[in-house]
Amino acid sequence: MWQPAQLPAIASQLKARGLELDPSRLTDLTGPTMGAVVSIGGCTASFVSPEGLVVTNHHCAYGAIQYNSTAEKNLIKDGFLARTQAEELPGDPNQRVYVTDEIRDITREIVGRIDPKLGGLARYEAIDKAQKSAVAKCEKPGIKCDVYNFHGGYSFQLVRQREIKDVRLVYAPPSAIGKFGGDVDNWMWPRHTGDFSFLRAYVAKDGSSKPYAKDNVPFKPRHVLPLNANGLEAGDFVMVAGYPGRTNRYRLAEETRDAIDWQYPTNIRWYTEILDIINRAGAKDAAVAVKYANTVAGFNNYLKNFRGQLEGLAKARAVDTKTAKEDALLGWLRAQGGENAALAADIGELRGVLAQQRSVRERDLVLGYLNRTFLYNASYHIYRTASERAKPDLQREQGFQTRDEPKIEGTLKQWERRMDPAVDEQLFTHFLRAYVKLPQDQRVAALDAWLGAAANDDAALVQKVDALYAGTRLTNVDERLKLFKARRSELEASGDTALKFMVALMPDLLAIENARKQRQGDELRLRPRYMQGMIAYNESLKQPVYPDANSSLRVTFGQVQGFKKDGVEFTAFTTGDGIVAKTTGDDPFDTPAGEYKTLVARDYGPYASAKSGALPVNFLADLDITGGNSGSPAIDAQGRLVGLAFDGNWDSVSADWIFDPKLTRSIQVDVRYMLWVMDKIDGAKNLLAEMGVGGEGRGAAPAGK
Amino acid sequence: MWQPAQLPAIASQLKARGLELDPSRLTDLTGPTMGAVVSIGGCTASFVSPEGLVVTNHHCAYGAIQYNSTAEKNLIKDGFLARTQAEELPGDPNQRVYVTDEIRDITREIVGRIDPKLGGLARYEAIDKAQKSAVAKCEKPGIKCDVYNFHGGYSFQLVRQREIKDVRLVYAPPSAIGKFGGDVDNWMWPRHTGDFSFLRAYVAKDGSSKPYAKDNVPFKPRHVLPLNANGLEAGDFVMVAGYPGRTNRYRLAEETRDAIDWQYPTNIRWYTEILDIINRAGAKDAAVAVKYANTVAGFNNYLKNFRGQLEGLAKARAVDTKTAKEDALLGWLRAQGGENAALAADIGELRGVLAQQRSVRERDLVLGYLNRTFLYNASYHIYRTASERAKPDLQREQGFQTRDEPKIEGTLKQWERRMDPAVDEQLFTHFLRAYVKLPQDQRVAALDAWLGAAANDDAALVQKVDALYAGTRLTNVDERLKLFKARRSELEASGDTALKFMVALMPDLLAIENARKQRQGDELRLRPRYMQGMIAYNESLKQPVYPDANSSLRVTFGQVQGFKKDGVEFTAFTTGDGIVAKTTGDDPFDTPAGEYKTLVARDYGPYASAKSGALPVNFLADLDITGGNSGSPAIDAQGRLVGLAFDGNWDSVSADWIFDPKLTRSIQVDVRYMLWVMDKIDGAKNLLAEMGVGGEGRGAAPAGK
Repeated sequence: MWQPAQLPAIASQLKARGLELDPSRLTDLTGPTMGAVVSIGGCTASFVSPEGLVVTNHHCAYGAIQYNSTAEKNLIKDGFLARTQAEELPGDPNQRVYVTDEIRDITREIVGRIDPKLGGLARYEAIDKAQKSAVAKCEKPGIKCDVYNFHGGYSFQLVRQREIKDVRLVYAPPSAIGKFGGDVDNWMWPRHTGDFSFLRAYVAKDGSSKPYAKDNVPFKPRHVLPLNANGLEAGDFVMVAGYPGRTNRYRLAEETRDAIDWQYPTNIRWYTEILDIINRAGAKDAAVAVKYANTVAGFNNYLKNFRGQLEGLAKARAVDTKTAKEDALLGWLRAQGGENAALAADIGELRGVLAQQRSVRERDLVLGYLNRTFLYNASYHIYRTASERAKPDLQREQGFQTRDEPKIEGTLKQWERRMDPAVDEQLFTHFLRAYVKLPQDQRVAALDAWLGAAANDDAALVQKVDALYAGTRLTNVDERLKLFKARRSELEASGDTALKFMVALMPDLLAIENARKQRQGDELRLRPRYMQGMIAYNESLKQPVYPDANSSLRVTFGQVQGFKKDGVEFTAFTTGDGIVAKTTGDDPFDTPAGEYKTLVARDYGPYASAKSGALPVNFLADLDITGGNSGSPAIDAQGRLVGLAFDGNWDSVSADWIFDPKLTRSIQVDVRYMLWVMDKIDGAKNLLAEMGVGGEGRGAAPAGK
Repeated sequence: MWQPAQLPAIASQLKARGLELDPSRLTDLTGPTMGAVVSIGGCTASFVSPEGLVVTNHHCAYGAIQYNSTAEKNLIKDGFLARTQAEELPGDPNQRVYVTDEIRDITREIVGRIDPKLGGLARYEAIDKAQKSAVAKCEKPGIKCDVYNFHGGYSFQLVRQREIKDVRLVYAPPSAIGKFGGDVDNWMWPRHTGDFSFLRAYVAKDGSSKPYAKDNVPFKPRHVLPLNANGLEAGDFVMVAGYPGRTNRYRLAEETRDAIDWQYPTNIRWYTEILDIINRAGAKDAAVAVKYANTVAGFNNYLKNFRGQLEGLAKARAVDTKTAKEDALLGWLRAQGGENAALAADIGELRGVLAQQRSVRERDLVLGYLNRTFLYNASYHIYRTASERAKPDLQREQGFQTRDEPKIEGTLKQWERRMDPAVDEQLFTHFLRAYVKLPQDQRVAALDAWLGAAANDDAALVQKVDALYAGTRLTNVDERLKLFKARRSELEASGDTALKFMVALMPDLLAIENARKQRQGDELRLRPRYMQGMIAYNESLKQPVYPDANSSLRVTFGQVQGFKKDGVEFTAFTTGDGIVAKTTGDDPFDTPAGEYKTLVARDYGPYASAKSGALPVNFLADLDITGGNSGSPAIDAQGRLVGLAFDGNWDSVSADWIFDPKLTRSIQVDVRYMLWVMDKIDGAKNLLAEMGVGGEGRGAAPAGK
């Protein structure tokens, strides 16, 4: 997961693996290749036509597809194709395209003037202030800026992005193609998912960013990715550029152990309990099932992920491996003496901070889950925002500044489609039942006071929560949006039970937050020291260090290749025949009849592999990706689009902690399958033409190359 | 799944595939190869030493291992090795070894004198009587005889078996080897299970069959299978001889459709509900969990199987395939005219019988499930046996003859370890709730009468069942064994609520039974006609027809080979490295420390593959096996043991209905892994010596060859 700026340093490796472009070209974020790669918030995408056409995963465009679906016109099921720009549908109002135009190291600006020894709250606040100032200086209408922390505070980079606010749905295949295999195949190989969709970025006529408006015009990107309609074969060079979310590769052994022994098993148990509550309610009321469908899908996805993490970490003997590496690091640092020995001592201090976090983790878990309930979350955000508004903007808590208010308001609206008060109440009660089992030293005084005798009497607890939900107006969307505009004093004078609850709780929550910031301040001092040691040690072994993923733009390169396990070889490509073999007629293996017939007839047009004659569907590569990379373009040695990354194999799940190059594989949808579906199945000739791909001829590079 | 007698007819195929023995040798059931293959009741095994040593699967010896386990001395977990014959442990009293010594076609004897047009109850009873007579004529102390129905009544064969009643546990590896992979890997490849164990057959000093007695002596089999300690490599000829239980390859398309649309989904639902009841009770009481552990394991196993069946049948488009084959058959028969056209008409009649069965399937399902409850099953068997005892033995119902009484009594005892009255009552109630939802035309008058108003009042139903369980002594093991000896009149005069319930129900149950026999009599006339047509049709296509599995001795031959799917190739062997890679330390991947260390060191001794240098663990072959084949010897071209069949791949689950030679694979444990574990891990040198395998030298053929 290299930062673009690191690529020239590893140019010889890139050339050796087969890159034909000059690696330095990839460092130019506004240049021909990287300039076409964009973030769409949680996913990656790329421009593929000079008219602002964007390709990404079907699951990344899912929000836009769902937003435009009704029971009568179910675009998820049936798919959607705009034959003209006029037919394109507005996306979810929060849908964005972010075009990165600068990444600048501002480490000095952030920590340059802070005493290296300063820790605790003072360090936290100094860094927080510097970050907010840097953002404020950078942002302007249509431009979004964020400070990214690398290596836990070892360096900071300011990322400036153009924010496009009118993003429309252009084309999505039916979910039987776009989600083929569903949860069953999720994280699995062999895979046969047509996980692609097209959006289009629109701006005002004057070129400025503007929310959806009928007279907006397509955005003209400076660069687009040309398509290589011939695709790749096994062994070919391939790279992926995108926005990976988070990895934990440099965590200490004890953090890995905590994840295995506590974090994943605990969350598996909680998720299972929550799903049980929601599913029982959903079984009785279809409307409830619909409201929680996304939540349930997300929980199930994470449950499978957590189990994969545990399985992978156990098989990799991750704690032993990490402990051995850490011991070697510490031994080396101590043997070096001097400043390096001091680093070793600081790693010891870091462990102390981790121990402090561990001592309150059960409480923080319960509070975290409570904050997932509507009533807690909404009352917290309404009251906290009102409280923060009293301060100058730069002193307001991050996440509660002026720039954050539209998003909070959007979430307060969105609850309407995602929450049922009766289910929310059950969840709230469930979490409180966990709270009252906490040991005394992890209790929250204000919450204990609110509970009173109900802390030791389940019937009373149920009554208490009943009264809380009965006496609030927050469950009414208009009321809560009105309250979001109210002043702090009005909220504090309110008789609303939820607001009263939150007003009573807030002082303790802020105290907990301050204690957390204190620990984070220490961590911001100590983790960079640990990373400094790790970087020095790896340099001594001639191993370059890339930073853990942090949602910033990265490049990963490698080859199209399968992997082997004992008794089984996973080959690099799946084909159309595999779709036929998997088809059962039932979701998630309900291939559309037209596609099934065309596949059985092996009518591949010009999209078959020149080598095998088969229709390539998905392919594996030894690329290092994680959540956030979804939709990333897979790019060939000449900088052309050959597929879209959308998932990893089962062994890649635990690669967030420990990367095994022999087993970790990314899964891409092949450009030939995408074009074949567009041409033969969905008749998206207009888009093929726009991208410069001839219906029955091999695609030429589009004009934008 | 060829019958041994069919082998000479396909001798050229056998030779072409690589068999070096004379195929006709395999038809001699008491000869050198087949004479060593035995049934152990539900599983297959083989003699491997002149001292009666028997090798089978670990999961086939599980009963004997469990029977000798206590919380303090847990042989399941720790494994067991008798270093001398004196240390060998008696098996479960019902453990048997059956040595087949004759299979004789008695079709004429059974149906030769029955009018071919005779159907219904009369046909059923005539066949039933002939079967019982044949068995009675054949059986004597120590000899068990059974009549096997082939092709649904097209032919009948009498199988005579020597019944050895003293079977002792000799050696079992720890379950972390013998069940490695557990339910997770069940029906899966790649597989790494050491699914082998050793038993020994004992007889009285005079050679007669005798239950366990201290002075019994090892049985001297006429033949044993020699071992080929060099094992096989991919591509080699291999065959399996054993006792497959049941397949449905010749079922009509509509029967396949019923299985897909009704039978599997319905049973999946019922199993899930039953598991839910049992698991909730087990979560509250560990003793209950222990009592139902086997039941739960069995249900889970079947649930996975049923899901596999549905998945496989859907993917194979089984109904379409079967319909096309059936249409082709009917078309051919009609085109032939004459007798063949009459066969086509009879197939139409067979469909009528199936429709009759379908009209009462929901009722029969409920009654079947009720019969799985202890109270229903025990009261039924006690009262029915008493009723049957009044008749001459040959007129008693099959399953309730004198020869069956010990088994019924054993089951009445065994309930003690398998049943909790409170759980049984919950299940009984659950099934009755399903009963009261049956449509009127499927109701049982006597049961309706017993239920009275409770049929429409759930609270009353619960009370009714409560009273039933409160008023019975059957839950007391001594009482029920005493009642099993009682006369019919005593039972009918009894005030025991369960007996009263059963006495009231019995006339209706017998009427239902008679109606079923009536349909079965028709089926016994019509299904052979269908098979006659099928055989003629297949002969016209030059395709030989083997009968569906029916627990009789069969031979299947093929090659050691993997299989391919889109995006993945399953290779023929797994190896020791794969065990290391799968090991997590947690059940079912908790490789014993000693084994793990030895595998990491790759200390394979003489057991590595000469070709790959790896330690072969399990291997795939294109053999046609099903339940009952477990423990079957895998035999090389020269008749030597090279492994034990123990499972099939996921695609083989639905092969019971439709066999796809490209995807269906049997899974065998490799003889080299077995010997390596015995030698390097468990130190079973005594058994290696007994089988003539040198500890560090390649095994010589044992003396018995």
